Amino acid sequence: MSDFTTLTVAELNELQDQLQSKLETFKSQGLNLDMSRGKPSPKQLDLSNEMLDVVSSQDLLKDESGTDARNYGGLDGITEAKQFFADMLEVSPKEILIGGNSSLNMMYDAIARAMTFGVYGSETPWGKLPSVKFLCPSPGYDRHFSICELFNIEMIVIDMKENGPDIDEVERLVKEDESIKGIWCVPKYSNPDGITYSDEVVDRLAKMETKANDFRIFWDNAYNVHHLTDSPDTLMDIMATCKEVGNPDRVFIFSSTSKITFAGSGIGVMAASEQNLGLIKEQLSMQTIGPDKLNQLRHVRFFKNMENLHEHMRKHAEIIKPKFDMVLNKLETELKEKNIASWHEPNGGYFISLNTLDGCAKDVVRMAGEAGVKLTGAGATFPYGKDPRDRNIRIAPTFPSLDELEKAMDVLCLCVQISSVKKLVAKKQ
Amino acid sequence: MSDFTTLTVAELNELQDQLQSKLETFKSQGLNLDMSRGKPSPKQLDLSNEMLDVVSSQDLLKDESGTDARNYGGLDGITEAKQFFADMLEVSPKEILIGGNSSLNMMYDAIARAMTFGVYGSETPWGKLPSVKFLCPSPGYDRHFSICELFNIEMIVIDMKENGPDIDEVERLVKEDESIKGIWCVPKYSNPDGITYSDEVVDRLAKMETKANDFRIFWDNAYNVHHLTDSPDTLMDIMATCKEVGNPDRVFIFSSTSKITFAGSGIGVMAASEQNLGLIKEQLSMQTIGPDKLNQLRHVRFFKNMENLHEHMRKHAEIIKPKFDMVLNKLETELKEKNIASWHEPNGGYFISLNTLDGCAKDVVRMAGEAGVKLTGAGATFPYGKDPRDRNIRIAPTFPSLDELEKAMDVLCLCVQISSVKKLVAKKQ
Repeated sequence: MSDFTTLTVAELNELQDQLQSKLETFKSQGLNLDMSRGKPSPKQLDLSNEMLDVVSSQDLLKDESGTDARNYGGLDGITEAKQFFADMLEVSPKEILIGGNSSLNMMYDAIARAMTFGVYGSETPWGKLPSVKFLCPSPGYDRHFSICELFNIEMIVIDMKENGPDIDEVERLVKEDESIKGIWCVPKYSNPDGITYSDEVVDRLAKMETKANDFRIFWDNAYNVHHLTDSPDTLMDIMATCKEVGNPDRVFIFSSTSKITFAGSGIGVMAASEQNLGLIKEQLSMQTIGPDKLNQLRHVRFFKNMENLHEHMRKHAEIIKPKFDMVLNKLETELKEKNIASWHEPNGGYFISLNTLDGCAKDVVRMAGEAGVKLTGAGATFPYGKDPRDRNIRIAPTFPSLDELEKAMDVLCLCVQISSVKKLVAKKQ
Repeated sequence: MSDFTTLTVAELNELQDQLQSKLETFKSQGLNLDMSRGKPSPKQLDLSNEMLDVVSSQDLLKDESGTDARNYGGLDGITEAKQFFADMLEVSPKEILIGGNSSLNMMYDAIARAMTFGVYGSETPWGKLPSVKFLCPSPGYDRHFSICELFNIEMIVIDMKENGPDIDEVERLVKEDESIKGIWCVPKYSNPDGITYSDEVVDRLAKMETKANDFRIFWDNAYNVHHLTDSPDTLMDIMATCKEVGNPDRVFIFSSTSKITFAGSGIGVMAASEQNLGLIKEQLSMQTIGPDKLNQLRHVRFFKNMENLHEHMRKHAEIIKPKFDMVLNKLETELKEKNIASWHEPNGGYFISLNTLDGCAKDVVRMAGEAGVKLTGAGATFPYGKDPRDRNIRIAPTFPSLDELEKAMDVLCLCVQISSVKKLVAKKQ
């Protein structure tokens, strides 16, 4: 089948009947498939099971410095864990703050603290200002946007381009508006596009002039080591760049092992300048006695070094690459020539981002849901859940099995076609 | 030696010389002892080492409901953990919210959320009000007070009596002042006095009339099962009482296994009405994907039931009871007849609270520190670190060995005597 946009109304109507009847066949199978969230599959989780065996009653339960890992203490993490994550994020151990099992929680806390107390260098807590705004490169990560919404931070959509957010627009806005206090970035294998920011974008983010003197880049480097191929994307070192250009406190980096070891029992981590962390640790010392040190020991003893970490990530890729390939092949064979959708082929991360014809995404997600295929809600990848063009659908291929994924993609591709035909017919009539 | 208060100045001066020379002997030993924080000892931590073996790569890594405990999900905890903590706190599993490794963090979060969003039933977030006040039964737990200080919540000292906080005063204040939004309570084996609130106090806290319609009791039941004797104190069920008297949403209960299993890798838990938790979970769902489920599995599989938990706590008592006895015996033999100090003999918990003559606590803590014995800072047990009578010293006997403790107590008792003599001489001159 060729380009849908060249078909007549009669041809489209006939096509519609064929597609609809195919969809009915799938519906009759009573499918129950979930491509909605970026969850690792059981096989991926199995890769880390032995991490559960390296901190047993028979093992030394002290860290390198001799501290009892079972007892209280260690606000920012044990020495060897700070070193490990410093290596992973290419910063100094002094710039590392280890958290609990959730980097999302660390981001939430960073925003909550900024609102109540301000960040290092703030003259006024953000929450006491008449308005606080964040730039939100979109499509982006729904949970970033939820945090902003909860704290009543106004979100400004910034278009995602092939090399990262529309940096001209970012520069223009932050230069003129003092109430813009931050920007959310997933700079490597972005959620959902799978795009890695170019050196130019990173450089300009680090050096751009901001009207707010306490502007922060929330750099969610969630997919830092999550490559799918042997020729991975490279991301410029933003911390080093910020230091070089004289904005050493501009960036808060976040990451975690949630999609490296166990999604629910990983380790969240934050990296920032010593000045930033100094203030944060002061406040944090009122909040907690420190994160779980035994789980830090588990991680460090399991991986030992970066080489093993990267080897481990190659095993993840072996499991999930065929799933990404399945999704991409289906998109290619079912949609490409029809001129009704576009997508980016990522070199890593957890998602494939599909753009339909304008105004079709909600319809597709609803239709697929009715056929037993659950997708991330349409609009979720935009602030306030509102995709202005109603065209972006986030595909999360990691959790389902290959068989399930194939069926789910068949349904999705059918739904995209049906919705596109409806849209094209409406347009032509 | 008899009552110091009956001695002449000459006798006191002579005594001073003797005491000082004894202290010099200790000083020359180069002691380095720490009685400053309520930390479990290594032997206590050893009691739970086998908890590390029940969730290995060879074990089923799913919870009772079949959910993969390694993956994302479970905002409020796994079913069997909620049941376990519901049994421990005598509430319904629906009233349980499982947290990470720190109940302090849950208290901090509860305050932070109340300030930014309000609690269930709030008309205005607390942080938007001209002033917010908390009642602080004192001596109390320094970290409760630090949280208030950080959030600029004004603290009002309430005297601790033999049966709990001065309830007449509490009732009087909350009835007339709408800005009083809460009270901090450690109701069982209180920190530091080791006092358990009487039924009358619990009952009156539950039913008292409060001007603020969103008043909350922060019920830090940290030492719920931490008995030292076979005839433990009993604490009236505040949640049931609050429900009975028509104030079902008044109480936030907190507890943890920090001093049951591992201080740094335990499980924090909160209990509150379903209405309270409903609002909290709504906000929490923006903050985290949920707490570490593998650590919940470890706890539930290790303990299985309340009987085993209580048996486990008896083993803790076997280790720490001799330490409490040592402290109490030293106080008895060294200080009792001298009429210069008083203390409460607790049936559980982690502390012994020593009251010196007025104006001696800072001096004693300083002097002991100089002799190599670190105590909790004088004043720490009061809001803003200010003990109005400068007399309260918190003794934390659990961490040091019995030998260390004996020496530390010898030094402490000497310092109390020296400081008392100085005070008495000054008074008489």
